Amino acid sequence: MRIGILGGGQLGQMLMLAAYPLGLETTAYEAKAFSPTALVGNTTIGTTEEPEKLRDWSMHCDVVTYEWENFPAPLVADIAESRPVRPDPVALAKIQDRLFEKRLLADLKIPTSPFRPIDNKDDIETAMSELVLPLIFKTRTGGYDGKGQVVSNEGDDIQAVLELLNTGPLIAEQKLELTKEVSVVGVRALDGTIKTYPVTENEHRNGILHKSTAPASVAPGIEAEAREHVTAILKHLEYIGVMALEMFVVGDRLLANEMAPRVHNSGHWTIEGAEISQFENHIRAVAGLPIGSTELIAPTVMVNLVGAIPDPKSVMKISGAHLHLYGKEPRPGRKVGHITVSAADQTALQQRVEAVESLVNNVLQ
Amino acid sequence: MRIGILGGGQLGQMLMLAAYPLGLETTAYEAKAFSPTALVGNTTIGTTEEPEKLRDWSMHCDVVTYEWENFPAPLVADIAESRPVRPDPVALAKIQDRLFEKRLLADLKIPTSPFRPIDNKDDIETAMSELVLPLIFKTRTGGYDGKGQVVSNEGDDIQAVLELLNTGPLIAEQKLELTKEVSVVGVRALDGTIKTYPVTENEHRNGILHKSTAPASVAPGIEAEAREHVTAILKHLEYIGVMALEMFVVGDRLLANEMAPRVHNSGHWTIEGAEISQFENHIRAVAGLPIGSTELIAPTVMVNLVGAIPDPKSVMKISGAHLHLYGKEPRPGRKVGHITVSAADQTALQQRVEAVESLVNNVLQ
Repeated sequence: MRIGILGGGQLGQMLMLAAYPLGLETTAYEAKAFSPTALVGNTTIGTTEEPEKLRDWSMHCDVVTYEWENFPAPLVADIAESRPVRPDPVALAKIQDRLFEKRLLADLKIPTSPFRPIDNKDDIETAMSELVLPLIFKTRTGGYDGKGQVVSNEGDDIQAVLELLNTGPLIAEQKLELTKEVSVVGVRALDGTIKTYPVTENEHRNGILHKSTAPASVAPGIEAEAREHVTAILKHLEYIGVMALEMFVVGDRLLANEMAPRVHNSGHWTIEGAEISQFENHIRAVAGLPIGSTELIAPTVMVNLVGAIPDPKSVMKISGAHLHLYGKEPRPGRKVGHITVSAADQTALQQRVEAVESLVNNVLQ
Repeated sequence: MRIGILGGGQLGQMLMLAAYPLGLETTAYEAKAFSPTALVGNTTIGTTEEPEKLRDWSMHCDVVTYEWENFPAPLVADIAESRPVRPDPVALAKIQDRLFEKRLLADLKIPTSPFRPIDNKDDIETAMSELVLPLIFKTRTGGYDGKGQVVSNEGDDIQAVLELLNTGPLIAEQKLELTKEVSVVGVRALDGTIKTYPVTENEHRNGILHKSTAPASVAPGIEAEAREHVTAILKHLEYIGVMALEMFVVGDRLLANEMAPRVHNSGHWTIEGAEISQFENHIRAVAGLPIGSTELIAPTVMVNLVGAIPDPKSVMKISGAHLHLYGKEPRPGRKVGHITVSAADQTALQQRVEAVESLVNNVLQ
């Protein structure tokens, strides 16, 4: 069996590495000549402007999945006519638009921050008068790592919001006083089996994920609720593969923020910290194979390498530290790798995390 | 940095998979057109009859190591003139001949079964009269997975021993009443740091490793002694990389059997069961990088897939089971993959092991 992966970034790279021991072939479709997938496996260099090349590539796959969900929908629909695409592009379309996503969450009675659709200048004023300020204006499609967002408060110049509106329709959300940010990764198999990983606590820096800690330090009720939410979404969409749901803890309330229809950065810790990783489970799910245990092995922390790579020797000197480099040229704001540490004992874990954070902070100075 | 691997089997494949996340390049040199390394990375197809091709390949490597230790010594010596070869071929030569190996162990005061060198027919008779029968006659070089061995008892026709002697000089060892077979994997870094993995208990079937259990159920004294033995050998040889030492427990005594100058089948469990696997630590060591923690994460059992592969779906239905397929065509007696299971709780572990063994036994019927 050969699995096609749309996109050639680090998520695709880690999917490929997870597929090898299972005896499954993979191939990526990626525009850049040098890509993380090309370093570890079969990659076809092709753009979204080359539909024939893409179609030809897909004909050599038994199933097609994504590591980059912003692949143009018509191209994916074209592939889906002759090959199974997992998750289903129809399910994907429902969550790729932030407005549809919020409405889906509302249908499933999953609480979110209050929101309003923004299609014109009047909508901005209505939202600012009806919701509690400040508001976050986000593009309805695209946007990641804090891109495509503007925060606006009373008396602010709304010029930046209007500029964002020029790029397409927006959604306005009430900005919340967060207690913490968490996420949950879930996976659904072809036979309908659903498994969820322990809830992860996330820390962002400049809108980019900095650190994920599993398990999250949240009340058992919040943990259960988060897992129920992602389970309900996976079931409702008849989704196949891995999905992440990002959420906010506000006081004792859990509010859904957004979904990612793919393996997720906040699930990288599962390579070492869970029985079967998110990457292996996504591969198993899209290949129609049984999914495996999502149980935690030991408390685990992942720290992203953004814009710079510390000396690998320094990383390897930290007992039990796992270095993951993606083979990307460091540039400001670019995720180029991550480091994972685990330990059954909290004191040992904290020592390892401090050593990792100290290296990462030093290299960014 | 690019690491050259002599040999393209499953050990090379797992070394390559361990090198990717560290951002290190690898390339294998292998005679077969279809090989486990070729499935996952860069592999030059070349034989030991093509010294120029081999030399050219090695010039594209920063360091060269082995996954197959029977590579002809003169060819390796030739590479070593222009590139670091780790472990050092001189160290390797000392342990590749079973007679030199036994003498090295004796020098280091590491107990072994009584032995005699066998160069001619008279030596056979002398050995059979001086040692306690039965004896195992082994070729001094080559031989693995029970090949190149003959067991002989009083009154036996020694024809089979004479035939083995025709292939080259032998060694005769007293066959022991084993309590159990164990092994220990150790690793030494370029800076002299040595780390050892927990002692592993091994079960063979038809001379081929069937199952490895870590940690071994042995007295703390035996565990410490085994780790001291491999440490002494690594130090004495100024060895760089991973080495395995196979040993026999006879009553309350620990006797060394043989060394493997490479990553070892009885260390495959370290991928999931130890903090840093034998494969990553070998890569780190030969690349001159710091070696990582060899601590056990949880009790772990590995079962080999020899000659046949069970339905991958059945394997994946076993909670937490890790399937490793090497991409080799199944043939009787051929190692084509392995399955690893871990669990902190012994009851859960035993259930998983029984499920795995049942699958493996069924497929071999």
